[in-house]
Amino acid sequence: VPGLVITVTCLNPALDITHEVAGVDWSGVNRPGQVRVRPGGKGLNVARTLLAIGAQARVLGLAGGGTGAEVTSALAGLGVPATFTPVGGETRRTFAVVDTRDGATALFNEPGPEVTADEYAAFLVTYEKALADSAAVVLSGSLPRGLPAGAYAELVAAAAAAGVPAVLDTHGEALLAGAAAGPAIVKPNVAELEALTGRAIAAADGPDLRAVSDAAAQLRLSGPDAVVVSLGPAGLWAATAEGTWRAVPPGEVFSNPTGAGDAVTAGLAHGLVLGQPWPERLRTAAALGTAAAAAPVAGEFSPGDYARVLAEVTVNRAEETP
Amino acid sequence: VPGLVITVTCLNPALDITHEVAGVDWSGVNRPGQVRVRPGGKGLNVARTLLAIGAQARVLGLAGGGTGAEVTSALAGLGVPATFTPVGGETRRTFAVVDTRDGATALFNEPGPEVTADEYAAFLVTYEKALADSAAVVLSGSLPRGLPAGAYAELVAAAAAAGVPAVLDTHGEALLAGAAAGPAIVKPNVAELEALTGRAIAAADGPDLRAVSDAAAQLRLSGPDAVVVSLGPAGLWAATAEGTWRAVPPGEVFSNPTGAGDAVTAGLAHGLVLGQPWPERLRTAAALGTAAAAAPVAGEFSPGDYARVLAEVTVNRAEETP
Repeated sequence: VPGLVITVTCLNPALDITHEVAGVDWSGVNRPGQVRVRPGGKGLNVARTLLAIGAQARVLGLAGGGTGAEVTSALAGLGVPATFTPVGGETRRTFAVVDTRDGATALFNEPGPEVTADEYAAFLVTYEKALADSAAVVLSGSLPRGLPAGAYAELVAAAAAAGVPAVLDTHGEALLAGAAAGPAIVKPNVAELEALTGRAIAAADGPDLRAVSDAAAQLRLSGPDAVVVSLGPAGLWAATAEGTWRAVPPGEVFSNPTGAGDAVTAGLAHGLVLGQPWPERLRTAAALGTAAAAAPVAGEFSPGDYARVLAEVTVNRAEETP
Repeated sequence: VPGLVITVTCLNPALDITHEVAGVDWSGVNRPGQVRVRPGGKGLNVARTLLAIGAQARVLGLAGGGTGAEVTSALAGLGVPATFTPVGGETRRTFAVVDTRDGATALFNEPGPEVTADEYAAFLVTYEKALADSAAVVLSGSLPRGLPAGAYAELVAAAAAAGVPAVLDTHGEALLAGAAAGPAIVKPNVAELEALTGRAIAAADGPDLRAVSDAAAQLRLSGPDAVVVSLGPAGLWAATAEGTWRAVPPGEVFSNPTGAGDAVTAGLAHGLVLGQPWPERLRTAAALGTAAAAAPVAGEFSPGDYARVLAEVTVNRAEETP
């Protein structure tokens, strides 16, 4: 492994704006009682979690326009080292309206900029330079418009050529192509795994573990060294070259699934870099996911929650088909 | 009159963001088909209209944070000269969600920054310098949080001391105090005039003109040289030292009342600077208001609409109590 830094890509970052309104008038004028603005995007959540557990992390990505400048300055304010290759388009906003009376949330996700081939080429130069001192790369989130579905596969291959292992957390075609390029770990959730393999996994009383096992094994055969499936409150399922494990966290407090998956990815990347055995790696990842799920803001968690949950996670070997 | 420029204050500008969604899910995830972003605030609309009709105009205001930077750069892109005194708070966003299936629009207005006494003092220095080459000032829109209700009165008085006439378009306490400071023109709409005088004016078949006349005369007695009431599709009512007039535009296309009032204010300020007689001034203002009301975006209008409507506006002397 060439270096110590975990490089996290965030190719389509966002400015997340939340308005809290007591009793929304959906066809009138509202004055939000509370406005919160923070940098968003799965890669940023991963990087923040890595920094919180003492890892060295940096963000590489693409950003543009006034919103891109806001994301950049907000990350600096949070102490997250980030280098964004400039793009001509405008970095996207996500806009959430939370009705504090009934808890209903409406989310409006802008598409983000269309990235040109030249802009992506400029990003690649930065990325390949960063590989020189990277212990691992985390490739996280959707690809922006304009990039081919094979972009993550190219980033996985470039990392492999530099001797740097990759952790991939995306979905659809980008996951399919990226997995085939042989990353160290891919981390789908249940919905992503269902979409990819065509198998029905989710059920009313939790995921069908036989279907999880089959789908994870199928995905692993396509290229990655390991497949770790995040099962929400039901924990993690890991299909690896050393065997298959399931990690089960305590309790069921699961208010923030987005942040939870990103915290799991951070835990897996950190364990990979430290060379932790799989059971320890999964314990850390499951505890981070559970602590993050209990936090109101993606990318954040309470260290107390993390320490408590870490002691309570159970990790057991599983049969390939339970 | 010291100069040629019309100075327009915009103390609480905004970044107006509009998402168009076909069939909004108010408790789920939406992907807007269209995202529009533009600088907003009544003063900015006034300045854009002034520039469009060939007047020299500049915007002075207060702006801060990433949103303030976006407003500043968007105005530069539109060719509007603007100087914003920096504030520590974040310039507000307005967020509109338009459901393109049923036309329903939900608007979310952030409050905007709380302005400190020091920030306002720094603005005053810029404002008083600008008076030296100003032909008129337009004081337009709500006061930001932190400023006293008498702030517009102070700006009117400073302009008067420099020999510069003021046009005031605001509401509530700020209008009451500002009118008493003796501006050249105040331009309330029906709702503002009702709130100020306690008289019922609006009616199902249009405004009660006797009530308009009485309320305008009452407001004029409090200090301003002239009161011009914007009546929506029913045109303008002007109570002045030279007499009382009513301007009636043709037709009833009135899709954008906010932009319409601001265009009227621009027309009144321009006519004031040119020394136009009241009937000509009101004709221009009513035509601009009608053309702006027909345009989808506040601050804009079609020159063709304006030219056509200008020929069709009727301006007649009115009795004080019709």
